[in-house]
Amino acid sequence: MSKDINLDIFCIGNAIVDFLSRTDDSFLNVNKISKGTMTLIEADQAETIYAKMGPGMAMSGGSAANTIAGFASMGGKAGYIGKVANDQLGNVFRHDIQALGVKFDTAALEEGAPTARSLIFITPDAQRTMCTFLGACVWISPTDLDIEMIQNAKVTYLEGYLFDRARAKQAFRKAGEVAHAAGKKVSLTLSDPFCVDRHRDEFLDLVQNHVDILFANEQEILSLYKSQKFDEAVYNVREHCEIAVLTRSAKGSMIVTQDQVIEIPAEPVAEVVDTTGAGDMYAAGFLYGLTQGKPLAECGRIAAIAASEVISHLGGRPQRDMAELLREKKAV
Amino acid sequence: MSKDINLDIFCIGNAIVDFLSRTDDSFLNVNKISKGTMTLIEADQAETIYAKMGPGMAMSGGSAANTIAGFASMGGKAGYIGKVANDQLGNVFRHDIQALGVKFDTAALEEGAPTARSLIFITPDAQRTMCTFLGACVWISPTDLDIEMIQNAKVTYLEGYLFDRARAKQAFRKAGEVAHAAGKKVSLTLSDPFCVDRHRDEFLDLVQNHVDILFANEQEILSLYKSQKFDEAVYNVREHCEIAVLTRSAKGSMIVTQDQVIEIPAEPVAEVVDTTGAGDMYAAGFLYGLTQGKPLAECGRIAAIAASEVISHLGGRPQRDMAELLREKKAV
Repeated sequence: MSKDINLDIFCIGNAIVDFLSRTDDSFLNVNKISKGTMTLIEADQAETIYAKMGPGMAMSGGSAANTIAGFASMGGKAGYIGKVANDQLGNVFRHDIQALGVKFDTAALEEGAPTARSLIFITPDAQRTMCTFLGACVWISPTDLDIEMIQNAKVTYLEGYLFDRARAKQAFRKAGEVAHAAGKKVSLTLSDPFCVDRHRDEFLDLVQNHVDILFANEQEILSLYKSQKFDEAVYNVREHCEIAVLTRSAKGSMIVTQDQVIEIPAEPVAEVVDTTGAGDMYAAGFLYGLTQGKPLAECGRIAAIAASEVISHLGGRPQRDMAELLREKKAV
Repeated sequence: MSKDINLDIFCIGNAIVDFLSRTDDSFLNVNKISKGTMTLIEADQAETIYAKMGPGMAMSGGSAANTIAGFASMGGKAGYIGKVANDQLGNVFRHDIQALGVKFDTAALEEGAPTARSLIFITPDAQRTMCTFLGACVWISPTDLDIEMIQNAKVTYLEGYLFDRARAKQAFRKAGEVAHAAGKKVSLTLSDPFCVDRHRDEFLDLVQNHVDILFANEQEILSLYKSQKFDEAVYNVREHCEIAVLTRSAKGSMIVTQDQVIEIPAEPVAEVVDTTGAGDMYAAGFLYGLTQGKPLAECGRIAAIAASEVISHLGGRPQRDMAELLREKKAV
């Protein structure tokens, strides 16, 4: 295989197929599922909850994988590592990411756990609530890394969700070290407030010492610093990362560096249908702008446009050619 | 299992999982796929074409299964027979139809072919073009029929697609005989103009001698009578079936009986996104009205509303509670 590709971005993530279904709030209450968050579930719970779930649709998902899909659709050169099983859902995941031109060659898990599934409940307020069975994802390990690909990528982007399992965390840490040793940037998304809560000390160490570009939403950054006040969290994070990108749903987002704070308004949408993938697509847009050498404010605008596309339909991956959309919006 | 359920409708169909992806017309031309129709493909072609397909989403499909899903979502009591394999896609199909309260107990195919897949290409004009690998569907047979369920259903609804394979055709014919012997109605959808072309003589015999309620779109009814003129086809079909329901896309539809012709306008939609399932959902609405004892014009209006929902998003199954939609539209 030729390695002469200089990637814009390289990602490691949990390779997941999403099962999306609309539901009402009472379903979440009755089943004690915390709205707007990601709950890890085991195989038997996945069966039980799926049996209670309404009819739906299946789409390739996974946080970093959504980001890489959006990034590739914008025209960026991207590589991905994630573990699927050798099963029908794994084939769907592999197809969808490769169809976008993303380099994805991670060997499938041949036996044992099936491909990961996230059962995603969309409530009438367009919020998404996820119950994720990690399945084959748990089996990713440092040996799955493509060192040369990481060394040649401008940015290595990692999802916080990887911290939930030991082998994935090792792969995460090693990828970051390789990227920095090659003089490249390391980016992290905090993924989920509960995930931050589970791994706060390690995440704080990462943010302070190892991450150049941080993505977080309001709840996540507050959780990281155990703070009630957004301003306080902003004050802390600007000392820790070169760039912090903080998303605030309809309030837009904030790009924070040591010497500037740029506020980016949310891109208007006719109707918010499903927020699945909003943060992932925001990161895709921001990183696309950044790796194309755009000023931060323009990166933010691209990010806001990307997020606006994905929240206007069901599912966490774009449904249209993002390069075309960015041209239409005169953002590139 | 209790059989004391009196179903409104019972369906047999090809149990298929749809893979939907947007594409442009040139893709269809280059790959010599006839736009707007259903082409049968074999396992190896399914692999080859899927490899060329863009990223997409997977949803339970199948013509009669879409109809039954819509019918159940409106509040009707429904039963379905179709053959999936014991695999991940088969589980998705089973889950989605059972989650709507449809009685579906057909044993899965334990080995051999996988669950059927339809690769559906959505062009910018919202037209859908299907390449279907029948897989496990081919293995449905008369022994899969639940005779008592058919005897107790007001209408037995059959899809023309079943005629493409011998065992499925036998199951189709037997179900019709059982329904009529029990004094119930038999309904058929012609499914596809090429399908009609493959089985014209048998379909003509069915329509003349065995079908009470016929569904067809303009191309299909013209193909059936080898006619160029819609009026001529209408003239023929009114002599053959108790009720013929002829759909004409944006031109609305026509309900034809021996003594009346009722024209139903299409329900306006903000944007036609994907016509997958339009005919299926039209049949669902019409049959729901009919089995609820509504006059034909009201059945047509329910049908038009049902079709308008499904064409306003990607995928051939409704994305909202159809009973609620019909109440909002004051159609029930």
